[in-house]
Amino acid sequence: MRKQVREYFISTYERYESLFECLNCDKAYYEKPISLRHPLIFYLGHTATFFVNKLTLTRLLTERVNESFESVFAVGVDEMSWDDLNDAHYEWPSVADVMAYRQRVKELVLDIIDTAPLSLPIDWENPWWTILMCIEHERIHLETSSVLIRQQNLEWVTPHQAWRPIEDFGPAPANVLRPVEAGQVVVGKDLDSPTYGWDNEYGEHRAEVPGFEASRYLVSNKEFLDFVEAGGYQSPEYWSAEGQKWLEFSKRSAPEFWRRKTVDGKPEWHLRLMTKEIPMPWSWPAETNFLEAEAFCNWKAEQSGKPIRLPTEDEWFRLYDISDVQVRPETAWNANIHLDHGASSCPVNRFQHGDFFDVIGNVWQWTQTPIYPFDGFKVHPIYDDFTVPTFDSKHNLMKGGSWISCGNEAEPSARYAFRRHFFQHAGFRYVSGALKQTAPTSHYETDVLMSEYAEFHYGDEYFGVPNFPRALVELLAPYFKGRKTGKALDLGCASGRASFELARYFDEVLGIDFSVRFIDQGVQIGREGLLRYTLVDEGDLRIFKTRTLAELGLDDVRLPDFAQGDACNLKPNYTDFDLVFAANLIDRLYEPAKFLDDIHTRIRPGGLLMIASPYTWLEQHTPKSAWIGGYKKDGENVTTLDGLKKHLEPNFRLLDPPKQVPFVIRETSNKFQHSLSNVTVWERHEG
Amino acid sequence: MRKQVREYFISTYERYESLFECLNCDKAYYEKPISLRHPLIFYLGHTATFFVNKLTLTRLLTERVNESFESVFAVGVDEMSWDDLNDAHYEWPSVADVMAYRQRVKELVLDIIDTAPLSLPIDWENPWWTILMCIEHERIHLETSSVLIRQQNLEWVTPHQAWRPIEDFGPAPANVLRPVEAGQVVVGKDLDSPTYGWDNEYGEHRAEVPGFEASRYLVSNKEFLDFVEAGGYQSPEYWSAEGQKWLEFSKRSAPEFWRRKTVDGKPEWHLRLMTKEIPMPWSWPAETNFLEAEAFCNWKAEQSGKPIRLPTEDEWFRLYDISDVQVRPETAWNANIHLDHGASSCPVNRFQHGDFFDVIGNVWQWTQTPIYPFDGFKVHPIYDDFTVPTFDSKHNLMKGGSWISCGNEAEPSARYAFRRHFFQHAGFRYVSGALKQTAPTSHYETDVLMSEYAEFHYGDEYFGVPNFPRALVELLAPYFKGRKTGKALDLGCASGRASFELARYFDEVLGIDFSVRFIDQGVQIGREGLLRYTLVDEGDLRIFKTRTLAELGLDDVRLPDFAQGDACNLKPNYTDFDLVFAANLIDRLYEPAKFLDDIHTRIRPGGLLMIASPYTWLEQHTPKSAWIGGYKKDGENVTTLDGLKKHLEPNFRLLDPPKQVPFVIRETSNKFQHSLSNVTVWERHEG
Repeated sequence: MRKQVREYFISTYERYESLFECLNCDKAYYEKPISLRHPLIFYLGHTATFFVNKLTLTRLLTERVNESFESVFAVGVDEMSWDDLNDAHYEWPSVADVMAYRQRVKELVLDIIDTAPLSLPIDWENPWWTILMCIEHERIHLETSSVLIRQQNLEWVTPHQAWRPIEDFGPAPANVLRPVEAGQVVVGKDLDSPTYGWDNEYGEHRAEVPGFEASRYLVSNKEFLDFVEAGGYQSPEYWSAEGQKWLEFSKRSAPEFWRRKTVDGKPEWHLRLMTKEIPMPWSWPAETNFLEAEAFCNWKAEQSGKPIRLPTEDEWFRLYDISDVQVRPETAWNANIHLDHGASSCPVNRFQHGDFFDVIGNVWQWTQTPIYPFDGFKVHPIYDDFTVPTFDSKHNLMKGGSWISCGNEAEPSARYAFRRHFFQHAGFRYVSGALKQTAPTSHYETDVLMSEYAEFHYGDEYFGVPNFPRALVELLAPYFKGRKTGKALDLGCASGRASFELARYFDEVLGIDFSVRFIDQGVQIGREGLLRYTLVDEGDLRIFKTRTLAELGLDDVRLPDFAQGDACNLKPNYTDFDLVFAANLIDRLYEPAKFLDDIHTRIRPGGLLMIASPYTWLEQHTPKSAWIGGYKKDGENVTTLDGLKKHLEPNFRLLDPPKQVPFVIRETSNKFQHSLSNVTVWERHEG
Repeated sequence: MRKQVREYFISTYERYESLFECLNCDKAYYEKPISLRHPLIFYLGHTATFFVNKLTLTRLLTERVNESFESVFAVGVDEMSWDDLNDAHYEWPSVADVMAYRQRVKELVLDIIDTAPLSLPIDWENPWWTILMCIEHERIHLETSSVLIRQQNLEWVTPHQAWRPIEDFGPAPANVLRPVEAGQVVVGKDLDSPTYGWDNEYGEHRAEVPGFEASRYLVSNKEFLDFVEAGGYQSPEYWSAEGQKWLEFSKRSAPEFWRRKTVDGKPEWHLRLMTKEIPMPWSWPAETNFLEAEAFCNWKAEQSGKPIRLPTEDEWFRLYDISDVQVRPETAWNANIHLDHGASSCPVNRFQHGDFFDVIGNVWQWTQTPIYPFDGFKVHPIYDDFTVPTFDSKHNLMKGGSWISCGNEAEPSARYAFRRHFFQHAGFRYVSGALKQTAPTSHYETDVLMSEYAEFHYGDEYFGVPNFPRALVELLAPYFKGRKTGKALDLGCASGRASFELARYFDEVLGIDFSVRFIDQGVQIGREGLLRYTLVDEGDLRIFKTRTLAELGLDDVRLPDFAQGDACNLKPNYTDFDLVFAANLIDRLYEPAKFLDDIHTRIRPGGLLMIASPYTWLEQHTPKSAWIGGYKKDGENVTTLDGLKKHLEPNFRLLDPPKQVPFVIRETSNKFQHSLSNVTVWERHEG
């Protein structure tokens, strides 16, 4: 195993260095190929620093190699927007120093591989997993740096023996749509899986994919030319809003790597490769960003009258399942991948996989699916911001790998996602078919208050204090016996947990909150079966958390309804409830007296009202003049309980002495609010 | 017992009403006698409303009599400052309606006295205590309303058979100082005491009173005239700063009730009584506020070359002890008190009590002691703002009672206190003697944060979580074995509890905090042996709390020193500590790195450093750039523990893995902060 890892490391590390041999001058290293990202010198140092940083984190490395390098080479520019220019000033070290640094890191890593204690299997928790992670990280940058070299000034790069493009320039085939029959896809690695994977590949995802048609070939430069010549870049109607904005910013009229040249007095298209420009190879796949691919499909749909669009990730998996690329030979792959055939694309009709070509390899294939976590997704603690920041509905998945994709990148399970305006060695295949599936949610709640409430309602228990909404409903359960349990109203439902708990007992539950953001949490966990949120650990550090209804035993209750509303001004049709449940509500109302005086009109005679509150009156929520207790009146103390009795006794009977139910709201790993809610249960007078 | 209470009630209630028979027109009721207080109609209704409100509170009364009256008559104007004008608009009811209301209340109270369940003894918790409280409250207003009548326009009042002044106008005696020998006074009621007392009279107070001299007589009008004629009111040097301000505001040149008249063409002094003016009775006691009495003493001291001043409360008690007024006859008292001799003062040489005259009675005697709580003071829950608001060092005690003082007021144990500029039937006796005693503290901390910390350090435990400062010191105690325990530094000591706990182990303890207000709590509990503070119950309601060192078993530890200081910039002489104790400090510093990098210079080699913190980094305390952890650096998580190690390991050795110690800070009766402090113990490298 050590030997395997050693070879895997050396080949990756050295191949990465050889990529930089294509650069022929300092400018190539220090001038940015594109304004949005660091110059290539950064990427040369970065992959070595990544080893040092991650191996330090896992304690395999005990001392830093070069603290200054490990700071400047640590974090790339996250190109989140096309006009998000990086103007920070950097003092980059010399190429020689960086290469010497890489050498020193290489020795240290080899020493670790040779001597560090090794226990098998190498799974997520194994420190050796980090070594594999660093190697795979290097492989990712092998690909992204090759793109940056391709974007660098042509004069500063030189063809290189090890990076020769494929010389195969046949005519482009006419594309056709071929059927893919309906079927189930089951994807997602489990933690016992023998190969390395990034955290976003784990968990489970199942989908029934309806039948669809897919283009036999990736869209070739030739096929894309029709769009260009049809004025596609000048026709905003084919572009999404995001696409139109990008077009306006970028002023494009053709793909990134296309070059318009005049040869023998005639205009001619050429193509920029890594180290040279060649006459346009029309049979090679068109390389575009997602926005261009999407616009092409819209144009194509109009042209053909068919529902042409980009495939979903599930559809790509389905295509993969029905093709015959699953088995890879020990020698060269039957696909333009893994650098097995050369350092460029090749014709879209060269590698056949059953009915289709290039199901994997040649160039990445954009999907219309923004990356999202599979069920059971967990963040890998050693690289906790690899995936989660991309769960923002703005990063679309690419599938299939390109000619330079190695290691994990070449696996069908790989799930790389980039901003939709971003360029890689990426093109697309189109499909035809109705799209019924909505994109799975990828949202992690990052708002501190929203996340605190998600944890409060659905998360863990602290200090042995039972979940509060559940405890309240259980406290009420004995009162339900012998009473009608038709309709319950959870007023001030916040994240909605009590609504779900009440649904164990009531035929219909309606959760109402003033805040739509809270309502959304209840709606989401109902619809998706899970909530994802981020908890404050300490300072700016965050913990990523997912909680499912199934874990809470709530996956088979009838879903509550949720609606936005004002407890002091409810819609007139909210009536005849058998229970109004008002947890931690009254001291957050701007007019609690109005609420208390009117609430009997919502409850049928004999029905129940539960008020739970810590009686924490704050002027920010309730003007002092509107407090129903917690003040002196005519010199005497008026407690909130006094106020409740005053306002409720005309219409209700207090069923039992007040009880206290504790609750805990987690703020950080070390800080909690621990409160006592005073619970009174009232029965509306009969008649 | 019912009969006794019945008679006591009727006589008090009726005597109070008879006082208002001195008023001869509506203006007398509705025009304010002095701008700072309500008109007399308020006081007519007020004492009846007080019965209703307090008896409702104890559930002896179940229904209000007149909700509107019980609102307008509930709360008097608290005259806290002489220019604190009350401009609120009131709609006062008619006299007839108020009298009818009084009659209705009288019947209800009599019904309660006749029929309410009665268990003996009538102690604090007994609902009947409230009946006595209401009667005593009426007696207080008997006196204060008589003062307001005396301040009302002379034309609107009429002499009354039941309120005839004493007609005794002999010449004023020359005053002399007479010795009072040293002795101990032991005062303070206990809860078994058979007579009614206000809460401020309970508890215990002992004092050794050094010998002093006291004037045989109260200062007569004649004696005070010398001060007036000497230009005392025009000589700011005799007046305290407060006295000068009052003088400037009031423009006085003689006492409140003195009237300058021209009789037969000659100027002559007269005196305003309740219902008439009479030629100045020179032998009667001069009536002044505290500020005038104090100025007189300062003038007298200058004149006589003796340390003339007002007595302390203790000195009055000592005077009382050595006089022979303890035993009261069943018939008329041998003192001008209790209305036994008429409705006015009388000559200062009429009632002799041993060597002195008027030790009790005639007029109240100002003392220089601001009212303060005796040890063991507790607030009576039914009237929780009777006393506590006067614990502000601005309300001075008056002793001895006046001609109209009845019931509790006539008791030597009575402790009434008024603002120093306030007028009552009050004058003074002066004493001569050095004053060594400082005024006992009367301060109740009302600031919310300060009170929360007082409770956090010295108060109760919640959720079973042990007292945090004590728990930390106990966690450290095993490390003290075999180590030097000379000097300990409690850095960021806040209210100082850990300093006291460390004093169990260390020869010297120094507590340092950035906040002088925190330091003051440590200093105070050390000096006074107790802390008094107010806790938020709910909303604006407060709970009054006292905690003594003795209750905490800390009354015999060597007192720590406390000093203000900045943990990031300590004085150079704070060195050679055997322990630096830093609890919940580092995440509140503006430069924690500087503190951590320098702290070894304060600790002797081999000495200990304890850091306890919930690692709650907040930009309001520490700029993000100064956090030592809780952020990502170069893409990787840096925890606070990482930061501690980085900064401390050059000079310290971490002795054990970190531990977590919980702590709870009470915010309201129902809301708490519940946190976990991460504790690391470090040993400074030897040499």
